[in-house]
Amino acid sequence: MRIVQKFGGTSVGSVERIQATAKIVKAEIDNGNEVAVVVSAMSGQTNYLLGLANDMNDCPPAREVDALVATGEQVTAALLAIALNKLGVSAYSMSGAQAGFKTAGKHAKARIKSVQGEHLIQRMQQGSVPVVTGFQGVDEQGNVTTLGRGGSDTSAVALAIAVKADSCDIYTDVDGIYTTDPRIEPKARKLDSISYEEMLEFASLGAKVLQTRSVELGMRYNMPIHLRSSFDLVQGTRVTREDKGMERAEISGVAYNRDEAKVTIKGIPDQPGIAAAVFGPVAEADINVDVIVQNISEDGLTDLTFTVPRNDYQATMDVLNALCIKMGAKKVKGDNQVAKVSIIGVGMRSHSGVAKKMFDVLAKESINIQMITTSEIKVTVVFEEKYVDVAVRALHEAFDLAQA
Amino acid sequence: MRIVQKFGGTSVGSVERIQATAKIVKAEIDNGNEVAVVVSAMSGQTNYLLGLANDMNDCPPAREVDALVATGEQVTAALLAIALNKLGVSAYSMSGAQAGFKTAGKHAKARIKSVQGEHLIQRMQQGSVPVVTGFQGVDEQGNVTTLGRGGSDTSAVALAIAVKADSCDIYTDVDGIYTTDPRIEPKARKLDSISYEEMLEFASLGAKVLQTRSVELGMRYNMPIHLRSSFDLVQGTRVTREDKGMERAEISGVAYNRDEAKVTIKGIPDQPGIAAAVFGPVAEADINVDVIVQNISEDGLTDLTFTVPRNDYQATMDVLNALCIKMGAKKVKGDNQVAKVSIIGVGMRSHSGVAKKMFDVLAKESINIQMITTSEIKVTVVFEEKYVDVAVRALHEAFDLAQA
Repeated sequence: MRIVQKFGGTSVGSVERIQATAKIVKAEIDNGNEVAVVVSAMSGQTNYLLGLANDMNDCPPAREVDALVATGEQVTAALLAIALNKLGVSAYSMSGAQAGFKTAGKHAKARIKSVQGEHLIQRMQQGSVPVVTGFQGVDEQGNVTTLGRGGSDTSAVALAIAVKADSCDIYTDVDGIYTTDPRIEPKARKLDSISYEEMLEFASLGAKVLQTRSVELGMRYNMPIHLRSSFDLVQGTRVTREDKGMERAEISGVAYNRDEAKVTIKGIPDQPGIAAAVFGPVAEADINVDVIVQNISEDGLTDLTFTVPRNDYQATMDVLNALCIKMGAKKVKGDNQVAKVSIIGVGMRSHSGVAKKMFDVLAKESINIQMITTSEIKVTVVFEEKYVDVAVRALHEAFDLAQA
Repeated sequence: MRIVQKFGGTSVGSVERIQATAKIVKAEIDNGNEVAVVVSAMSGQTNYLLGLANDMNDCPPAREVDALVATGEQVTAALLAIALNKLGVSAYSMSGAQAGFKTAGKHAKARIKSVQGEHLIQRMQQGSVPVVTGFQGVDEQGNVTTLGRGGSDTSAVALAIAVKADSCDIYTDVDGIYTTDPRIEPKARKLDSISYEEMLEFASLGAKVLQTRSVELGMRYNMPIHLRSSFDLVQGTRVTREDKGMERAEISGVAYNRDEAKVTIKGIPDQPGIAAAVFGPVAEADINVDVIVQNISEDGLTDLTFTVPRNDYQATMDVLNALCIKMGAKKVKGDNQVAKVSIIGVGMRSHSGVAKKMFDVLAKESINIQMITTSEIKVTVVFEEKYVDVAVRALHEAFDLAQA
């Protein structure tokens, strides 16, 4: 097997953790595998460097900030290579530039354009371990660029694709994806595998274990991603292409997010372009809109309801109140005590009535649904925050998620 | 004027120091000069990183150590560029690789082979300041290499040569070279200028303000080096080609070193190859030999006396005692309470009797000279350590060094 292993900031956060990580790498080499490694900066280091930059200049040039923070991964790559050599494993560190990560686009938000895999494959075949800095590359002019927060996951998947790896193993501080949050439902079960599509939904619902871009990249090139713990070397969750041959459960998991607020602008004159008129100013205020529902228009008037992160509630209300006057709408209403619960699963495609079953379960618990949105493999409902625990447990039970 | 400025670790050791350094750079830009900058790592950072490497592996691979410690200068280069932009000065950081520092030779002890100056000159002519990492480059395979301790001075001089600068200004925490140590002789005077040859002698005698390699490089390409303080922006000492047209004082300065020990191996059979037989084992023990005197042979026997750093005294005695038996020499003697005082000056070439004058001065102070060596521009004597202060003051006075 040829494997790319990715270790996040907590896995390289101290001399001891780096030594433990080196042992994990060595174990794969001892198993006869070819291994390349991608590392993040020591946890806290990127923020420390950004702090220095901001102490110096409240608006530091993006090119220089990229050059600055990219040193964080260069330190951990060298240190891990040093630790591996101590264990008798031939290893050599490579910066994004040296490993051939070419990027396009803006500093701090660069996109990977290409990765040179050939020279790395050669080294891996000779039993040597390239230890590559995550999160960074160089642009066409040779400037150091970074991929944005969490970009190391994307680096790892891109490298796995470039070296034609059999698996991209992402080591983190959780051991996989669960059917739901075990803190709410102790019967929550770790999923052995989920599809890329499901993982994308989990990720967008706040499962901060994998960067969305890395999952999209894995999906596009069909690179299996194995999400697992660096603290406990049990099997984690494999993210792979949906297996058409297998019977699927109706759903794979229940996700939730308490950090929600709901706002409504009522009685807007219903004309083409009102959505743009409303969401333009909201986006300009850097507020991320999530679930959107537009009510049926009556008397030439329409209502628009959407959710935002709870932190942005007051800012959103301010924007809408100004808009209300400008657009001649009737009024603005808000509620910052709502939450969002979703059921996710590719099984929905072949099982009918999944959404209805969800609504029945919630009705039985006397939960009043305020908003609904659906995608092909997800149903999301918004309701009063206080019902989250009850809803998650009832859905987990009703969809039989405790059994594999 | 086109200037390369080099700032050492204390000049970039904190946010405040980096901001102060940025002001020094800006002042040269405001004066209408073209400027490129070379920086060291924050003081302490290189040792911190080496400590991490050694915690991980008592014998870390040199390639990885180089990759690790090279991040220190990358951090300060980016931070200084950020600080300069804050002051309205266009500046961009460059790693050794980006600036085109190609090196040859071993990791941690690489030599600069070439520097690409053209793209830097273009930027400087446009009013932009390249801020280049000192101490590092890349070898032919693209591996990051470092030049060894103090290598940033050499980087700065090499860059100055590559961009055809008019001066290489080395900012440090002293404000120049003095006729002698002001702690011993308060009348010591800062030298406006000295020749490369004199600077080499001062450096080899422990004036740790400039790396010897940087002076040699400056001498070879006739690049003026201006040694000055980043804390006090007065004129420092210019290191330049000897000015043939000027009358020269007999000597330029008096240097001393208390950190000396003297050893003698007596009654060695006087045969070809005895020096190699003695100094081979000494070098193998990593001991640096300084002044060497071989006495006139009598009865086919000879005495060999040399000085070593005082820390190496016991190790040297151990080596010599073993050799004494092996070579059939008579005995080994040692004294670890000696010191070395030198007078330095290109003026010696044209003034006769300088050495004799030195010996007279020391005789008048009843100082018994134990060893003498001379070069074209230096006379060094070794005597009892307790006489250092007396000798330095007497020589400073006799050679009239307090007057310019």
